[in-house]
Amino acid sequence: MLIKDLAQLCDANVHGGDASAFINSAADIMSAHAHQVTVLSDAKYKKYLKDTQASACFISEALIDGDIPDNLALLVCKDPEISFLNAVKALHPEPVLKRQVSEHAVLADTSTLGYDIHVGPFATVGQHSSIGDSSTIEAGARIGNHVSIGKHCHIHPNAVIYDHSVIGNNVIIHAGAVIGADGFGYKFRDNQHVKVPHVGHVEIADNVEIGANTCIDRGALGATKIGAGSKIDNLVQLGHNNIVGRNVIICGQSGISGSCTIEDGAILAGSTGVADHVKIGSRAVVMARSGISADVDPGAQVFGSPAKDRKVAWRELAALAKLPELLQKFKALEARIAKLEE
Amino acid sequence: MLIKDLAQLCDANVHGGDASAFINSAADIMSAHAHQVTVLSDAKYKKYLKDTQASACFISEALIDGDIPDNLALLVCKDPEISFLNAVKALHPEPVLKRQVSEHAVLADTSTLGYDIHVGPFATVGQHSSIGDSSTIEAGARIGNHVSIGKHCHIHPNAVIYDHSVIGNNVIIHAGAVIGADGFGYKFRDNQHVKVPHVGHVEIADNVEIGANTCIDRGALGATKIGAGSKIDNLVQLGHNNIVGRNVIICGQSGISGSCTIEDGAILAGSTGVADHVKIGSRAVVMARSGISADVDPGAQVFGSPAKDRKVAWRELAALAKLPELLQKFKALEARIAKLEE
Amino acid sequence: MLIKDLAQLCDANVHGGDASAFINSAADIMSAHAHQVTVLSDAKYKKYLKDTQASACFISEALIDGDIPDNLALLVCKDPEISFLNAVKALHPEPVLKRQVSEHAVLADTSTLGYDIHVGPFATVGQHSSIGDSSTIEAGARIGNHVSIGKHCHIHPNAVIYDHSVIGNNVIIHAGAVIGADGFGYKFRDNQHVKVPHVGHVEIADNVEIGANTCIDRGALGATKIGAGSKIDNLVQLGHNNIVGRNVIICGQSGISGSCTIEDGAILAGSTGVADHVKIGSRAVVMARSGISADVDPGAQVFGSPAKDRKVAWRELAALAKLPELLQKFKALEARIAKLEE
Repeated sequence: MLIKDLAQLCDANVHGGDASAFINSAADIMSAHAHQVTVLSDAKYKKYLKDTQASACFISEALIDGDIPDNLALLVCKDPEISFLNAVKALHPEPVLKRQVSEHAVLADTSTLGYDIHVGPFATVGQHSSIGDSSTIEAGARIGNHVSIGKHCHIHPNAVIYDHSVIGNNVIIHAGAVIGADGFGYKFRDNQHVKVPHVGHVEIADNVEIGANTCIDRGALGATKIGAGSKIDNLVQLGHNNIVGRNVIICGQSGISGSCTIEDGAILAGSTGVADHVKIGSRAVVMARSGISADVDPGAQVFGSPAKDRKVAWRELAALAKLPELLQKFKALEARIAKLEE
Repeated sequence: MLIKDLAQLCDANVHGGDASAFINSAADIMSAHAHQVTVLSDAKYKKYLKDTQASACFISEALIDGDIPDNLALLVCKDPEISFLNAVKALHPEPVLKRQVSEHAVLADTSTLGYDIHVGPFATVGQHSSIGDSSTIEAGARIGNHVSIGKHCHIHPNAVIYDHSVIGNNVIIHAGAVIGADGFGYKFRDNQHVKVPHVGHVEIADNVEIGANTCIDRGALGATKIGAGSKIDNLVQLGHNNIVGRNVIICGQSGISGSCTIEDGAILAGSTGVADHVKIGSRAVVMARSGISADVDPGAQVFGSPAKDRKVAWRELAALAKLPELLQKFKALEARIAKLEE
Repeated sequence: MLIKDLAQLCDANVHGGDASAFINSAADIMSAHAHQVTVLSDAKYKKYLKDTQASACFISEALIDGDIPDNLALLVCKDPEISFLNAVKALHPEPVLKRQVSEHAVLADTSTLGYDIHVGPFATVGQHSSIGDSSTIEAGARIGNHVSIGKHCHIHPNAVIYDHSVIGNNVIIHAGAVIGADGFGYKFRDNQHVKVPHVGHVEIADNVEIGANTCIDRGALGATKIGAGSKIDNLVQLGHNNIVGRNVIICGQSGISGSCTIEDGAILAGSTGVADHVKIGSRAVVMARSGISADVDPGAQVFGSPAKDRKVAWRELAALAKLPELLQKFKALEARIAKLEE
């Protein structure tokens, strides 16, 4: 694609360089070479601009500064991150799968498929389940009975969706994810754990993405719910009857026990943990590796295990670093007082 | 089901309400509506009783208190949790799978199947493996060679059971779980990691449940063992040669390195970790996110990383919260002493 | 195998016992019985030597001490661990799979297979993918399009390898592992998370082993790389664009966010976490459950979350244990000073 065409496609104006030069791919500013486009969106990478070998660079007016290589076309735009992201999509189009329902898949006779469906080899779709238009079920994926999957969904290989799950439109579920397994609940009686029946299900709204090997348990009664636009990373555990709001971010290896409410726009960083029956307020941020055992206020930023306000937690950690010395000093002080008391 | 029939089935007596009213499903006390049964087993939910829309509620004599809605039938019983659990099972019966061995499964010619077996499409059963009566192997599950699976087991879709695993009766293994992969062991020689051969296997006793995407490695020599009645949640890592006792509870995302002993009735809460060669005593409780690097006494309750007695750990955390202020006060004290010394 | 033959095979000399006795298997020193071989490589197990029922024991000259049972043949050697490991392999040979490409697998017409390939039932190999000589693709494994797999690799059941992955020789990938899923990246615009396209791939060098249900995301641009000889345990999360060096060890349930560099020979113990854009120096050791948010020097040993030098971290933890008492003493000291000031 020519630089000038890429600029037009991505809402940018060309300054300098050769607008008729050809761009074949995208790369980051440090490793880009000729015929590649890159982006400068963070001031701390500005130093790399003068030496980049890229042929073009998305940039905002505000970051243009210092020497610009002669052969570099600046693609000046309002939102370089989004312009670059669109350029990457244009330069690296997703491969067009030959869309077909594999003769090696098993679809129950009571299942219904929309238009333009792809089903890979050895996938299974259960009784009374429906797959919406333009959705893709990859090889070995398991769609249970009475499952509803919306339009434009992508279920990756070997993902497993248990019975009665309800999945919206534009949902991506990565390989090996398990949606709707039994929650972990028992009552201890007569020296054994009696299993609590889990007769609920999982509801996943539109535009949700769920990472590889993540597990989302179904409700004991009623639903475990993931709100529209929420994004869940790999190897996350979401227990039964959690209610996750809209546009929530849950990073890798986080675990949420059960019956929690995670409000809209909350962010749980990597490897966080949440005890059951807890509410995390809207736009709250739980920092990496924190453990939550009590409600978190909307907008709060918390850290530690058990977590508290991040500034308070950091002040405690800073104080802890001084504690070994304090113990020494304390002894010295005791001695001085003893002397004064003589 | 009529309320009076449900009461009889679940060992309860009807007080008030309409014993001939129809119940179609179960729900929690806050969201239940007409024709639903609920339960009150925890005093802290008592306040919801007067406003519940449920038609019936399992309850113990001791919790009956205050205003009871006219249209609510109290189902008075000794153990409301278990009565309700049985009601849920009666009202939401598990779907009856059409039991058959799929023509799309591959069963080795030397494998043996009991009576009333279900094998889903694209499942595989290896050489010299046996599946006991009334067991279910779902679609895409992989049963290796020389594997023994007992009666009334349920192996969910895409679970993988490596060679030589021995699995008892009434065992549930959820989707994506991996039983019997190689343990993680190497010897570093000549600048490379030499793999320790893992020629052991995994033994799982009766009535065990294993969560989705959980991994249980086989022994290097001898077995990794899970005792009868133990319950293991999703995404748990159980390393080689661990010996887990009876009725142990291991919650989600916990990790147990290797060669550990977890005695009967111990409880490991979510995201706990256990170093290798450690013993956790019977009925000990390891609280969430704790890390265990030394033996834990029977009945102990421990917290933290490294974990210690939970009361000691909490006292330390409470003290830590006062440390920043202590550092300030200490300086003031030093000044006062200096003044006294003048 | 006769003891004398085993000794010869494993570079050991027979001292005592019956060199013509038969050995049928291997076991650890505490559980070994007659006709089994064991090993003594750690001085702390020396006490078990006098009572072992084993018929033979690999041992170094330095550890021979005290009473040796009459019927025990000592197999004296330079490196008992490696000699024993070789004995285990000889006594417990891996089962010879009947090697064939299953008629129940689906191989794309543009895929290419080397010699001596095994492909299990219901495995799939995508367009333009190649499998090197003597490699094994087990049942239900998913090899995407444009994937390259080297020689002597073993891809276990239901593992999933996304498009464009490049895998070297002698690589083992355990069941349920997911290689090459999209990284977790979004830009928040107009109240929604816009997905960052991930057009990179994963490169895995020779002699790498990857554990069950581990996830390795592909690069956003460019590659996520795992260097030769590195070993990754179960349920590990490796985010996009991480560069892992040679002979690195990453233990179970560790999580590495993205764009990190883990240099040669580094060791990450169980359940560690690494923030993004961090460098961990060569041969550094990150202790179990530690969280890394800043670069770690080569050879450093760090602990805690956030992690610091392990000795410093332990000194702080030891001091913390004394803090509750210090708070008491401090009050007493204040009272004494107040008295002096009177």
